[in-house]
Amino acid sequence: MIRIALLGCGRIGKMHAATIVRSSKAELAAVYDPVSAAAKEVGRQFGCVVAVSAEEAIAQAAAVLIATSTPTHADLIEASAKAGKAIFCEKPIDLSLARVKACRAALKGFNRPIQIGFNRRYDPGHRAARDAARSGEIGDIRQVIITSRDPGLASREYLKASGGIFKDMTIHDFDLARFMLGEEPVEVFATGSALIDPTLAELNDIDSAMVVLRTESGKLCHINNSRAAIYGHDQRVEILGSNGMLISGNRRAHGLERFGPTATGAAEPFLNFFIERYAEAYALGLESFIDCVETNATPDATFEDGEKSLALAEAANLSRVGRRFVNIREIVG
Amino acid sequence: MIRIALLGCGRIGKMHAATIVRSSKAELAAVYDPVSAAAKEVGRQFGCVVAVSAEEAIAQAAAVLIATSTPTHADLIEASAKAGKAIFCEKPIDLSLARVKACRAALKGFNRPIQIGFNRRYDPGHRAARDAARSGEIGDIRQVIITSRDPGLASREYLKASGGIFKDMTIHDFDLARFMLGEEPVEVFATGSALIDPTLAELNDIDSAMVVLRTESGKLCHINNSRAAIYGHDQRVEILGSNGMLISGNRRAHGLERFGPTATGAAEPFLNFFIERYAEAYALGLESFIDCVETNATPDATFEDGEKSLALAEAANLSRVGRRFVNIREIVG
Amino acid sequence: MIRIALLGCGRIGKMHAATIVRSSKAELAAVYDPVSAAAKEVGRQFGCVVAVSAEEAIAQAAAVLIATSTPTHADLIEASAKAGKAIFCEKPIDLSLARVKACRAALKGFNRPIQIGFNRRYDPGHRAARDAARSGEIGDIRQVIITSRDPGLASREYLKASGGIFKDMTIHDFDLARFMLGEEPVEVFATGSALIDPTLAELNDIDSAMVVLRTESGKLCHINNSRAAIYGHDQRVEILGSNGMLISGNRRAHGLERFGPTATGAAEPFLNFFIERYAEAYALGLESFIDCVETNATPDATFEDGEKSLALAEAANLSRVGRRFVNIREIVG
Amino acid sequence: MIRIALLGCGRIGKMHAATIVRSSKAELAAVYDPVSAAAKEVGRQFGCVVAVSAEEAIAQAAAVLIATSTPTHADLIEASAKAGKAIFCEKPIDLSLARVKACRAALKGFNRPIQIGFNRRYDPGHRAARDAARSGEIGDIRQVIITSRDPGLASREYLKASGGIFKDMTIHDFDLARFMLGEEPVEVFATGSALIDPTLAELNDIDSAMVVLRTESGKLCHINNSRAAIYGHDQRVEILGSNGMLISGNRRAHGLERFGPTATGAAEPFLNFFIERYAEAYALGLESFIDCVETNATPDATFEDGEKSLALAEAANLSRVGRRFVNIREIVG
Repeated sequence: MIRIALLGCGRIGKMHAATIVRSSKAELAAVYDPVSAAAKEVGRQFGCVVAVSAEEAIAQAAAVLIATSTPTHADLIEASAKAGKAIFCEKPIDLSLARVKACRAALKGFNRPIQIGFNRRYDPGHRAARDAARSGEIGDIRQVIITSRDPGLASREYLKASGGIFKDMTIHDFDLARFMLGEEPVEVFATGSALIDPTLAELNDIDSAMVVLRTESGKLCHINNSRAAIYGHDQRVEILGSNGMLISGNRRAHGLERFGPTATGAAEPFLNFFIERYAEAYALGLESFIDCVETNATPDATFEDGEKSLALAEAANLSRVGRRFVNIREIVG
Repeated sequence: MIRIALLGCGRIGKMHAATIVRSSKAELAAVYDPVSAAAKEVGRQFGCVVAVSAEEAIAQAAAVLIATSTPTHADLIEASAKAGKAIFCEKPIDLSLARVKACRAALKGFNRPIQIGFNRRYDPGHRAARDAARSGEIGDIRQVIITSRDPGLASREYLKASGGIFKDMTIHDFDLARFMLGEEPVEVFATGSALIDPTLAELNDIDSAMVVLRTESGKLCHINNSRAAIYGHDQRVEILGSNGMLISGNRRAHGLERFGPTATGAAEPFLNFFIERYAEAYALGLESFIDCVETNATPDATFEDGEKSLALAEAANLSRVGRRFVNIREIVG
Repeated sequence: MIRIALLGCGRIGKMHAATIVRSSKAELAAVYDPVSAAAKEVGRQFGCVVAVSAEEAIAQAAAVLIATSTPTHADLIEASAKAGKAIFCEKPIDLSLARVKACRAALKGFNRPIQIGFNRRYDPGHRAARDAARSGEIGDIRQVIITSRDPGLASREYLKASGGIFKDMTIHDFDLARFMLGEEPVEVFATGSALIDPTLAELNDIDSAMVVLRTESGKLCHINNSRAAIYGHDQRVEILGSNGMLISGNRRAHGLERFGPTATGAAEPFLNFFIERYAEAYALGLESFIDCVETNATPDATFEDGEKSLALAEAANLSRVGRRFVNIREIVG
Repeated sequence: MIRIALLGCGRIGKMHAATIVRSSKAELAAVYDPVSAAAKEVGRQFGCVVAVSAEEAIAQAAAVLIATSTPTHADLIEASAKAGKAIFCEKPIDLSLARVKACRAALKGFNRPIQIGFNRRYDPGHRAARDAARSGEIGDIRQVIITSRDPGLASREYLKASGGIFKDMTIHDFDLARFMLGEEPVEVFATGSALIDPTLAELNDIDSAMVVLRTESGKLCHINNSRAAIYGHDQRVEILGSNGMLISGNRRAHGLERFGPTATGAAEPFLNFFIERYAEAYALGLESFIDCVETNATPDATFEDGEKSLALAEAANLSRVGRRFVNIREIVG
């Protein structure tokens, strides 16, 4: 049994707590949240120690799951690493690429597993698509199309702290693009609009985005995002190869279809929201992390993956402003 | 160019006229209908001779297409055969199996093609299913499930003359069952109810039916019929084999799907009615007939097929009344 | 927390144990199995008491889950009832309708919940179909079509003890038919063949079956079964009404589709077998039982449901031998 | 009956000839092709006059269908207009925007219908999607995604004369984008690669392209193209609105699906190529043109539509080279 300390007891922290408790290989050693009421609630629900500081929580476990607010991630990664604990950190590592680089420098010599919360890599459909592509089933990969739309606009408060759509939302798709392409994107084009809530322009943010990526060898990737798809959490990945195409599509709660005078084959709305849509992915991602902790193996979603997706998000920001294709070397030097 | 005489200018006769005219290998030589206004309308529309008698029409052609009312079919088959013409006759040959047997006797020595209008055999999806099954793709055939539902109840007048659901509607499915099974059904069970229009009981008829067939080797087939499926003309054929399953499904006018807050993947109603659903089948069936006429080959849907399906319909009637499995030998002797 | 005693630690018993342990409202109080090694294994895995007799296990709990071999069900129901415990019993109650009637008599005065393991009633898709039908969404129900096929033939040993296909496998579909029709079937026709393994005829059993049911008001239901569908556990329910149709279809592990030169839209095989296909149903069925235990409410799948489905299975056996429509009153008197 | 002169008897000319002949409202008055053998073949097949010059063909008809090679389109439009004939011209009008502008100037005062061969506007699925979007069914339009892939790379000879992917292939998608968006794109980003045939780089052409368009109000559109999709002619249009999404999907020859041990729901490859996929669209487009000729109405796909799509293609070329968002005003002045 791997003893895990959970830092952060908000929506996603609670979900992780439940996942840990359900796992047969892990136990929830301690929880901490700067809002002590939140920590106490999770502690009571799952019957575990409620620590009074992150350090105290970290001390009681073999691995640390960081689900606190983004600005604290890098510090907590460093603290956990210093304590020699395996680390699972929610995305993004930080909103600043410079801070991420500094964190990487601080991790030098750290030799325990560190996994970033790119849950979609563990979704059975997405994973099967990627495995089929890697196996050569569709020949040479030529294009990847990622459709990624949330069911509804988050609160203003959330959006203000989010770092903008590319670092908050598209970052998942940048990671998925890299996962599917099997080759690093070197050029980034991004544009978008505030179509759902035009006042988002006040935050210099957008709610509808389109991105094009290009790798060194010329493979192409398109990502489209919307903060509000009324029909559910729309999560599709398509890979076009020289010998075929793969599509990992949306999921519904069940398989009922309705047939009437005006429509046939009408099925349920898509699972909504990420906690439902990616429930299996969260569980499988945690299991994979635990396996890495047990064997000291490298996770599928590494610190470097977190850093590279953030670099793509920074390139997207630069592209949107500059209205041009941005070479990733302008960002990463 | 095969010159075809069309006998019968009602709904289905008109459809056949248009199909003949569109064919590059046939021409409409003459039309006849006891209601002369109907014949004149078709003659005017397609610019062909309007005969004053069936005999006159038959005389002008190399092949005769019989689309008159059912009670005249057998007489017109005999008249056409006597004149040495190839014959395409709409189903059923007659409502009386005795009359059909007499007709068969009268055809003795006739050596030109005679095709019965079992259009579904020529539907590309159904045909592909049957060809795949015949090729061994799904191994040994074990079960066939046929769903066959009309979009709405026909007029009382039509139903009164129809011969009852098994001879009028299910007869297509009996033929399709034989086509798919690749083996003769030897036992028939049938039941049903007047659920759409309870007053159909006055005609000793039903509008909702379920049938089970069993072949000598034990293969099973289920047919379900309804006279009123509000979502379109529901036409499905399923074949279960030892190595897989084939389903030839419904067709829609186009591929639009709608996604909204209460339903996703909502597509168009099914094509409605048989003239739309089986448009390709009618054209392909006519082309196949023309090829048979040209080469004096045996059509895919023969007189014997018409007779055997009628025998199954009679067995179904006997089964419904007797509430028991009826052996086909009780009918055909 | 409802304390549950589990009797029977075979494949399905283990699955129930895991479901109980995952529930936040129940705990596994004790387990018992005549094969003590099996009970010990479950006891060790889930950390619960291993009782030396059924009585000892029953005594430690508020509710009893009976997952032993079929011949012991009725005795254990009676023992649990005598001890005043709520009861969840796997299907069938017994292979003999007489024994079931005797058990019912013995339960007279027992006023705790008793639920039969008709898990399919709790499947989200099937349940949504039935709820939509009950709500009037598709108007008057006219036909129900149930396709129910196992992925592969069970062992000879299993089949010998099974009571035959109608009592072992179709019994689930009889229950589902009653659940969907909303009206009791009064007539039963059944036939079938040993197509997968012809030597099954030695057991007077079949592996491929077709059934037709008819209710008093004339509603029709078809069930088809196969013991071996190579493409997965095929579980479909279709309801045709005057105003539309509902289909609760099959489930796949994930939403990947493949597109290549010979096929498009090729998805995963269906979930296989019942433990995977009905995983949610088992969990929801247990939750529903626990709710009933807490509030002393009547479960959705009652003892009477178990008895009525068994009566339909006996009618099916009589029909298959007699090759005729059997009125249920011939069975239930 | 509208008498139509067909100029150009290559692959697409022959297809138009067959469509004209099948129409009940039009007849093929004359055909002309600089390769007289091609004209004679069509003339013989359809029994019409074979003209020795374009002028001679034009003189014999009320309407002219121009399906010659692209460099002759503008001249033939001007000649037809001078003769006062209604005009149907295949896309593109010309590869040079300057030539198109000159042609427009030459058409000043011409008041007969002129329709450009943007067949996809007449596809029933695409049309139904656009009509639903226009009707407000999905609220405000926010994004359009167009996937448009040919089944296989055309010949080198064809590609050399094609004007490059954006003017030859994407031009259809630019037109469809404008048709769906209901608002003019003002900014264009385009990139691509020669992934299928790297030697295409010698022609300064690509075979894999991604485009992003942005309208004045911020609506976004993505187009992806490939010259070789092994699974068929992939033609999808998706419209995301504030109240839902519409997808007009691919079409298959029939509705057979296969279920086996490794895949379920495997359907036919997509219809391949445009003549099959858009057969209905070609027929409906011609019918629509004939209706416009009869009533002197403005077609759905006008000369201006042809010009605007060409301007978008030029902008795409500029964007690809400049690696930046190009404002359409840089092109159209």
